[in-house]
Amino acid sequence: MVRRGRECSVAEALEVVGERWTLLALREIMLGERRFNQIAENTGASRDILAARLRKLVDAGVLEKRQYEAHPPRHEYHPTEAGRALQPILLGLMAWGDKYVHQGEPPTLWRHACGEVLEPATVCAHCGEAVNAPGTRAIRLGAVHA
Amino acid sequence: MVRRGRECSVAEALEVVGERWTLLALREIMLGERRFNQIAENTGASRDILAARLRKLVDAGVLEKRQYEAHPPRHEYHPTEAGRALQPILLGLMAWGDKYVHQGEPPTLWRHACGEVLEPATVCAHCGEAVNAPGTRAIRLGAVHA
Repeated sequence: MVRRGRECSVAEALEVVGERWTLLALREIMLGERRFNQIAENTGASRDILAARLRKLVDAGVLEKRQYEAHPPRHEYHPTEAGRALQPILLGLMAWGDKYVHQGEPPTLWRHACGEVLEPATVCAHCGEAVNAPGTRAIRLGAVHA
Repeated sequence: MVRRGRECSVAEALEVVGERWTLLALREIMLGERRFNQIAENTGASRDILAARLRKLVDAGVLEKRQYEAHPPRHEYHPTEAGRALQPILLGLMAWGDKYVHQGEPPTLWRHACGEVLEPATVCAHCGEAVNAPGTRAIRLGAVHA
């Protein structure tokens, strides 16, 4: 499919996860919630919207739907590898929101395996140094389609 | 303001940047574009939507609008510190899209200051080790509002 604008994996990623309720549902799943009712309550999403978003995430291979009860049929949502790979992005958004949007103490804290309260940082996988705007530049760009 | 659902900086961050055209406009600004017409063309956004999204980003302190011509008045959009702090998140989304959504070679490549093609990784700022789902757990949660 050729989209208008620049050919770009950010745009393609956003077609899968670029919607508020999608990302809030994924947040709850990262926090360990697995069931529709609990995800609905904790996000505040309407049931119709949430059902559509979860279906899309299952279709995209980000979540897996597993039946845990046969009569009546009930399901849980589990993250796939692709879903678990979104966790650092959500933690980055959380840290950005803590710093630049939220007033007061961070509402949510995470602990890293090392024992410290988690402060996520983005580094270059090659050298381990920080990734920031002055130290990175695009060397290949996707074509722009009118 | 009390929102429905969990009190959470992910939700607050998404109120500022959680919309497809907002993030695509920020992508172009990360790539060095500064002018409305070019951002519109490169994202494929309609002019009305783009104008509203840029205005919101200026109001939220993510972008700064600078006049570069007086007659007629013309402006450029520059990222603030808060805007530049979104770059690692966009690069993370790009890498996720490259791996899990895009078919074929990555459309966009970045080079890190160390000279290598950038592969962003999220680590714990304290110990430098990877951040991933099995190695992190929430130790404080925001309250859920019905």
